[in-house]
Amino acid sequence: MKEADVLIIGGSAAGMVTAMTGKSNWPKKDFILVKKQKDVMVPCGIPYIFGTLESIDKNIMPVDVALQKSGVKSLVDEAVNIDSENKVVTFASGDKIKYNKLVISTGSTPIKPSWLKGADLENVFTVPKDVVYLNEMKNKLGDAKNIAVIGAGFIGVELSDELSKHGYNVTLIEKMPNILNLAFDVEVADKISSLLTERGIKVITGKGIGRVLGEQKVEAIELEDGERLAIDAVVLSVGYKPNTKLAQDSGIFVDEDKFIAVNEYMRTHEKDVFAVGDCAQKRDFVTRSRVGTMLASTACAEARICGMNLFNLNVVKTFSGTIAIYSTCIGNTGFGTAGVTEQRAEMEGIATISGLFEGINRHPGNLPDAHKQIVKLVAAKNSGVIIGGEVIGGLEAGELTNVIGLAIQNRMSVNSFLTTQIGTHPCLTASPAAYPLIKAAEIIANKMLQNMKEE
Amino acid sequence: MKEADVLIIGGSAAGMVTAMTGKSNWPKKDFILVKKQKDVMVPCGIPYIFGTLESIDKNIMPVDVALQKSGVKSLVDEAVNIDSENKVVTFASGDKIKYNKLVISTGSTPIKPSWLKGADLENVFTVPKDVVYLNEMKNKLGDAKNIAVIGAGFIGVELSDELSKHGYNVTLIEKMPNILNLAFDVEVADKISSLLTERGIKVITGKGIGRVLGEQKVEAIELEDGERLAIDAVVLSVGYKPNTKLAQDSGIFVDEDKFIAVNEYMRTHEKDVFAVGDCAQKRDFVTRSRVGTMLASTACAEARICGMNLFNLNVVKTFSGTIAIYSTCIGNTGFGTAGVTEQRAEMEGIATISGLFEGINRHPGNLPDAHKQIVKLVAAKNSGVIIGGEVIGGLEAGELTNVIGLAIQNRMSVNSFLTTQIGTHPCLTASPAAYPLIKAAEIIANKMLQNMKEE
Repeated sequence: MKEADVLIIGGSAAGMVTAMTGKSNWPKKDFILVKKQKDVMVPCGIPYIFGTLESIDKNIMPVDVALQKSGVKSLVDEAVNIDSENKVVTFASGDKIKYNKLVISTGSTPIKPSWLKGADLENVFTVPKDVVYLNEMKNKLGDAKNIAVIGAGFIGVELSDELSKHGYNVTLIEKMPNILNLAFDVEVADKISSLLTERGIKVITGKGIGRVLGEQKVEAIELEDGERLAIDAVVLSVGYKPNTKLAQDSGIFVDEDKFIAVNEYMRTHEKDVFAVGDCAQKRDFVTRSRVGTMLASTACAEARICGMNLFNLNVVKTFSGTIAIYSTCIGNTGFGTAGVTEQRAEMEGIATISGLFEGINRHPGNLPDAHKQIVKLVAAKNSGVIIGGEVIGGLEAGELTNVIGLAIQNRMSVNSFLTTQIGTHPCLTASPAAYPLIKAAEIIANKMLQNMKEE
Repeated sequence: MKEADVLIIGGSAAGMVTAMTGKSNWPKKDFILVKKQKDVMVPCGIPYIFGTLESIDKNIMPVDVALQKSGVKSLVDEAVNIDSENKVVTFASGDKIKYNKLVISTGSTPIKPSWLKGADLENVFTVPKDVVYLNEMKNKLGDAKNIAVIGAGFIGVELSDELSKHGYNVTLIEKMPNILNLAFDVEVADKISSLLTERGIKVITGKGIGRVLGEQKVEAIELEDGERLAIDAVVLSVGYKPNTKLAQDSGIFVDEDKFIAVNEYMRTHEKDVFAVGDCAQKRDFVTRSRVGTMLASTACAEARICGMNLFNLNVVKTFSGTIAIYSTCIGNTGFGTAGVTEQRAEMEGIATISGLFEGINRHPGNLPDAHKQIVKLVAAKNSGVIIGGEVIGGLEAGELTNVIGLAIQNRMSVNSFLTTQIGTHPCLTASPAAYPLIKAAEIIANKMLQNMKEE
């Protein structure tokens, strides 16, 4: 039987980064990573294979190169059983590997709602992180003219824009009152929605899909209210579920939402078994509630924690809860969100106070590539601690969102933002006199002052 | 005699932001701001009036509009005396204004070295924040073909690139061994230097100017070692000195480098007199030494502190020391630096440990606008606390530098970076698995581990 000091099941971002971080921290240990397919997609790059990137080959993650450079062995196989008592994993090929430490990073699979009639017709797709499937899907979409994308989360929005760029007529359908409902409050989401509309995408919100119609192939869809749309292909992007059947069948504890339960070291209820990435349980940094956030960036953060704690739990290197930090762009407009929205905070019973400032990402605003920049900050009402932020701007929006993310992680308050130093440059950022992040904090500070006076 | 609860002398970024923040915090107080010229330049935009912006009119700061909106009166006049005992300022027009609180934000003036022979010839320029002067300078440069820029700080570098863009033959001359010597360590500065060279600028380092030659107009310059270059115009960008003669003559304490001494509330040695911006004393956040950092962004941070503390010192709103956070770009390559360089730390006797990682600012790297991204982090050797960072990348480099700036302000350690969550997106940032900021921290962490083992 093969043996490994550390065995990792799953070769996407979470598995790869656990392996690399682990090997770098414990260089004398043997690491084996087993992945299901030879080629692994850059997960967040998937929507872009339909437009910007043209070919799927351009979106392959250099996992094998990275692992080899780090001194990690990799195999292609599929785990079918974990015997955590004897510390042995059995694979589809019949091979068995004995481990000292096991890391489960089996990822997630798109949800295909069981209640949706017609979901099994030809030309109804989901968006799995699967090279073979996506290649086939790209080919089949070739003939289509009218595509419906169901679900306006990040993947739905990005995919709609890319498919539209590629020349398809795209209708994006979202059941909730606004697109990107988990990530942005309505006033920001509406601006993104308008941008999609300007780019020729038909956006329908507040109405879910009823059923898919057709003989063999999709011919139309019917919305909840009976409205029918002639459609040649449907892409379902209504969420992902963790791949945890293997863990659960092997007796590793999963929570009521089927995520593998883990602690701050990413350790499962089995002492020598860790779980990271989409398949692992997450708690929100702010609300402390369990959340279903699935992000490659979160997965990588968890993977680093896991890699550093494999053989010796290190109390200063723990995972402090998931801060959902998302960003994306439509054309040259970038968007980002970090922490909780006002809406989410309200649902969780957190009293908030917010400030929104509209400025410009260059100074003077006459510079040729200047773009409107909007920052909304959400703070806890009494303490002024920043718990969330939303950004619209140019392509700097991604890193600007990370500034907010870091502020949340450092539990910075509005007051500390007021005294924060920021670097600015005409061609790279907003003006130092009207830097939207600080102006938004000022708005909150003034509201807090006003509240104090009124009380 | 006119009266003001708050009188502000100086109408550039520092004065304007003090007025706006102050009025917003103390809405019942009367604010008067007096500036020397009607039109105020966006200070950091000045280099761009020579190329990208084309006209000076496009670089005017909307000071009057901003002040009016905030409810601050503004006048054009020049202060000639401060009587801090009777709290009266006398102006060039003969007017006097009685104040309760006074804010000095008189800025800085370019240095014209007194030892430099030929510095008074026609076509030898400096770069003051003065609309009239710059307009004239732009006209006079019209005829020139070969321009020498003396001093390769940020202004020298930006100006060289802009003048070159405009079609001039530019030679950039720096006395120190590398350009941008205060802001970047040599390995990063060299990359910026190569970029300038690629863009057709002649860069000479390690050699200062000896003298300027010519009859009436500049005809040539001679370097320290005797080398002569035929030159039609010289731009001196060798630093700025604080405008503090008014303060000093009026008995307000200035330090040995002629900056107005201030405490953490931006208060001078006179109880009711504050100073902010280039004219105010600065201490480095990390080294605690006095430094000559002059940045509009620093000025604005100081101005906010001042505005919030005018009538009531607020112990949670103090200035914690200057973190030099600079950024700039050459073409589509952005650069930034925050905190202290390794070189600077060494000069100050701080033992450091550093990590440099080269990655790419998109993922997959096949995306059309992908750009190499390099991050260098500098940490204190024993604690691992981050004290500096340098960035090269695309135009996101400005905000990425702000991520590092915020980490320094929060006294984050390398360990906390290893457990930090970052948002990533294919079209906006580096990959979550190879985010250069975290990879650079990992390199430092590994070095620290190695050091521990060796000791």
